[in-house]
Amino acid sequence: MFVNVEPLYASIVEDVRTRVSNLPRPPKLAVVTFQPDPSTQSYLKSQEKMAKRLGIEYAVFEVPKVTELKQILSKLSTDINIDGILLTHPLPNGVSEFELVSLISPEKDVEGRNPHSLGSLMYDAFAFAPCTAEAVVRIIKYLTEPAGKRVVIVGRSVTVGKPVAMLLAQKGVDATVTICHSRTPDIQLITKEADIVVVAIGKAKHLTKEYFKPGALVVDVGINVEENEIVGDVEPSVAEICELTPVPGGVGKITTVVLMEHVVKAAERRILGK
Amino acid sequence: MFVNVEPLYASIVEDVRTRVSNLPRPPKLAVVTFQPDPSTQSYLKSQEKMAKRLGIEYAVFEVPKVTELKQILSKLSTDINIDGILLTHPLPNGVSEFELVSLISPEKDVEGRNPHSLGSLMYDAFAFAPCTAEAVVRIIKYLTEPAGKRVVIVGRSVTVGKPVAMLLAQKGVDATVTICHSRTPDIQLITKEADIVVVAIGKAKHLTKEYFKPGALVVDVGINVEENEIVGDVEPSVAEICELTPVPGGVGKITTVVLMEHVVKAAERRILGK
Repeated sequence: MFVNVEPLYASIVEDVRTRVSNLPRPPKLAVVTFQPDPSTQSYLKSQEKMAKRLGIEYAVFEVPKVTELKQILSKLSTDINIDGILLTHPLPNGVSEFELVSLISPEKDVEGRNPHSLGSLMYDAFAFAPCTAEAVVRIIKYLTEPAGKRVVIVGRSVTVGKPVAMLLAQKGVDATVTICHSRTPDIQLITKEADIVVVAIGKAKHLTKEYFKPGALVVDVGINVEENEIVGDVEPSVAEICELTPVPGGVGKITTVVLMEHVVKAAERRILGK
Repeated sequence: MFVNVEPLYASIVEDVRTRVSNLPRPPKLAVVTFQPDPSTQSYLKSQEKMAKRLGIEYAVFEVPKVTELKQILSKLSTDINIDGILLTHPLPNGVSEFELVSLISPEKDVEGRNPHSLGSLMYDAFAFAPCTAEAVVRIIKYLTEPAGKRVVIVGRSVTVGKPVAMLLAQKGVDATVTICHSRTPDIQLITKEADIVVVAIGKAKHLTKEYFKPGALVVDVGINVEENEIVGDVEPSVAEICELTPVPGGVGKITTVVLMEHVVKAAERRILGK
């Protein structure tokens, strides 16, 4: 069965709208981009549309020179009119992503990319988590109670695998978490034992029915292009024996609203101190 | 069988000595302490002795007022004569450890407590890891090749469980890592499947032979006092069927030299830029 995330999506949208209307001024997201290619441009367009629909101000800062990237990130971090900062991909060659995202003030780091934000998750302290990782956790909590469950995460990226592990192992969430990756032998033996499997490996339709216990919840984070179609990391026939989140329209869909929710949260913390 | 960590200890001590002698000036560790109780005082004494034995300068900053803790940490973070900063326990009531350690410059954060340092581990970027977590990983690498092995960590603390998971899941280390904790049902079924088990729960002799696969490597991080004796989290009879690190004289012993190694590394990076 494919999971329907529409009700979750609608409830987050509704909540964001209400919270925006309770603020004395609109939240403002600053987007920093370096020579955006057509695909980035189209991504920004659709993001802007959604932000405006939710009452969030959206300002794009197109930076023509690499040397200015650091300056603008530092400047926006202290600009009192900006609540959230987003840095688009791809970054110019030879620039350290780690160094750049470290410049984004944690209070405005709505993408959860500053190492300080990631480390805060290990402290179970407040921080913005990477949006995709949080979307995964929100979908899991929406569908089931993670406490005491065995969760296997396939993939160890800093945007998904590792932060999802930290979020699900937190006190109060209480899942038992395993991280597998390309160097794990017999992955199938491990995923087959799991109540919940999160797949984020970036390989089209790579995991088939043989990988899962019937009845398990499978969260597909993959976004791959195959024959002009967007497909996930999980073979769709897995939906015959498991609950599977669809691609497109699953994790990606929730990720877009989680970002907006982060912007509102950042504004609430900055304006209302909550 | 009990693991003998003496050769590992000796090799780290030797390496630290050589590296200290190659520096143009001695590395300097600043220790910040708030109203140290007798146990903290004795801990500092033995630490100072070891530092001096290795050629590391050791300066204690005893802070009488809570309000001065933040100031001194910020000041030492920019003091060009200080290479590493250590903040002792216990902290005064009502003070946020998270806030204090965030003030320690990551380059001097030799205990690996700043969230920025912890998040850097998730990026596989350079950072000082928490010393105990690193000691665990060093012992594992000293005894075996972690790549492809199944490691189960019992305990999800920010000083051991979570950073050990991040270190062992890094590219190039390549273990498959599971984090269990007090809310994990049937922990025994999970630990029994592991090639390597790291135990950090703070309960005297809590894990018995029934928890382990014969031949597994068991790293005991526990330091508990029972009937005036220091004991680990693992029942010593486990050594009859597994390789078990002793308590005392196992992880704790390596941790003390890892701290000194971090101070030297911090000095090398600051003085030699490496």
